[in-house]
Amino acid sequence: MSEAVRFERVALIGLGLIAGSMSLAMRRAGIAGEITGYARSAATRDTAREISLVDRVCDSAQDAVKDADLVVLAVPVGAMADVMADIAPVLKKGALVTDVGSVKRSVFDAVLPQLPEGVSFVGSHPMAGTEHSGPRAGFAELFDNRWCLIVAPEGAEEATVEKLETFWRALGSQTERMDVGHHDLVCAVVSHAPHLIAYTMVGVADDLSRVTDQEVIKFSAAGFRDFTRIAASDPTMWRDVFLTNKEATLEILGRFTEELFALQRAIRQGDGEHLHDYFTRTRAIRRGIIEAGQDTDAPDFGRAKKSD
Amino acid sequence: MSEAVRFERVALIGLGLIAGSMSLAMRRAGIAGEITGYARSAATRDTAREISLVDRVCDSAQDAVKDADLVVLAVPVGAMADVMADIAPVLKKGALVTDVGSVKRSVFDAVLPQLPEGVSFVGSHPMAGTEHSGPRAGFAELFDNRWCLIVAPEGAEEATVEKLETFWRALGSQTERMDVGHHDLVCAVVSHAPHLIAYTMVGVADDLSRVTDQEVIKFSAAGFRDFTRIAASDPTMWRDVFLTNKEATLEILGRFTEELFALQRAIRQGDGEHLHDYFTRTRAIRRGIIEAGQDTDAPDFGRAKKSD
Repeated sequence: MSEAVRFERVALIGLGLIAGSMSLAMRRAGIAGEITGYARSAATRDTAREISLVDRVCDSAQDAVKDADLVVLAVPVGAMADVMADIAPVLKKGALVTDVGSVKRSVFDAVLPQLPEGVSFVGSHPMAGTEHSGPRAGFAELFDNRWCLIVAPEGAEEATVEKLETFWRALGSQTERMDVGHHDLVCAVVSHAPHLIAYTMVGVADDLSRVTDQEVIKFSAAGFRDFTRIAASDPTMWRDVFLTNKEATLEILGRFTEELFALQRAIRQGDGEHLHDYFTRTRAIRRGIIEAGQDTDAPDFGRAKKSD
Repeated sequence: MSEAVRFERVALIGLGLIAGSMSLAMRRAGIAGEITGYARSAATRDTAREISLVDRVCDSAQDAVKDADLVVLAVPVGAMADVMADIAPVLKKGALVTDVGSVKRSVFDAVLPQLPEGVSFVGSHPMAGTEHSGPRAGFAELFDNRWCLIVAPEGAEEATVEKLETFWRALGSQTERMDVGHHDLVCAVVSHAPHLIAYTMVGVADDLSRVTDQEVIKFSAAGFRDFTRIAASDPTMWRDVFLTNKEATLEILGRFTEELFALQRAIRQGDGEHLHDYFTRTRAIRRGIIEAGQDTDAPDFGRAKKSD
């Protein structure tokens, strides 16, 4: 497989954290001719123009995708069907469409039936992000050493899938192929359930009457604050994720609740051995993550060393 | 209140992350004459000697506390009673004893009945830590700008409480007084419940048959890995925390489960508005934490910028 890839025109639909980082990473890699972009919000388009996030900001999605060889749907999962309906009539023959959504079954359902003859679609899921959103949040290094899952529909051409993989590697990612159902289950485990749990814990803390928000904030370094970063993610994006990956997320949350009840019972009954065994087992996964280069081993992610 | 404080001899019982960091921070501040230390494990004592973590490592707790003006109980909460029984007969008249446990009611129950005449006790809870433990984990900056809760028993002398506050400020902390019951509730919210939830989520992910550990590890940057840091904390310490702060922890977990069920129902019923409202509300707490200097605003805690 050749590692050279180039698209003469790339259109980014949506100009948030992921699309913005893609634009900067494409420039860094020098793999795109012109990068066009469109966002539904005029304010976002203005900001994107102001900071030259892409080469040309368009006032319609149709203008942006005109003559594009690669079209990236970087909008919330719930908006994919409408965007696709809008752009389908003007997509160039031979164009490759991809998305960057966190859920794939529902993106397939939204996109594939509307795909014009001669246009291909293969899904992408860059497993990278920060708690910040919007056009100013992007940076070229976002994808470096992170995984991008490539989810191809049945019957996709091997050369097209390979081209998309090469593209993501040029942006700094590692790639792995996954089928659509497994993708949605894996993401429920590593991403969707953790986000819902984090949102829940932050909401509970916010809602207590006997402990003030000021206390929660002041003393958050004791563990709570690690939940707040992912619970600060974009609300619209996450609403759509849960609504569109319903079954897998609810399955994992069911398992979670079962385990939590077992640990609560161990606490209530004073079963220290059960707790100690459980807490020892979970350390191994952390070590695996550090060894795999997916997190830093700096204590407290390195932030405690600063006297900020 | 004068900010000058000095102890001619400080004894650290337990030589883990917190005690080690205290020794290094006391040296940095120049507020201790001799720092002695004791740990139950001979291996820990050997390591502490090898890296000169304290000025003198003793082979018994009694030796370490002899003539000490300040004695710090830095052992798991469940070990406090035994340590106190051991050292009580040799504590110096006029000495101040403190602890660094994460739970206070049960420390009071373990320590106060055994306190000799002429010796004072005031509890400390430095709200700082990392996922690392043991004598090599300490560093002088651990307490900088973090909060140390000061929990005095009824009838404690004001001058003694102030002396302990001044001590912690010399180590870099900010201090706040709290009564024992409120302390244990606040900690259940900001620390104990989040830790149990993180342990649970990591345990669930580890236990799935349809998603491999390798997949969980590889794709952890999507949210899961933020849970793994606190779920890598010391198992013995945390077992003791849950067993000794049972009621407050179970109360918060009960609230958590209630909320989680409400969100699960919203997902099942497709109630996007409920989800979006909830996810919007939780963003405010994150902003408060950044503004209070209790976390960094660097995207992804700054770790994503490194191409590690």
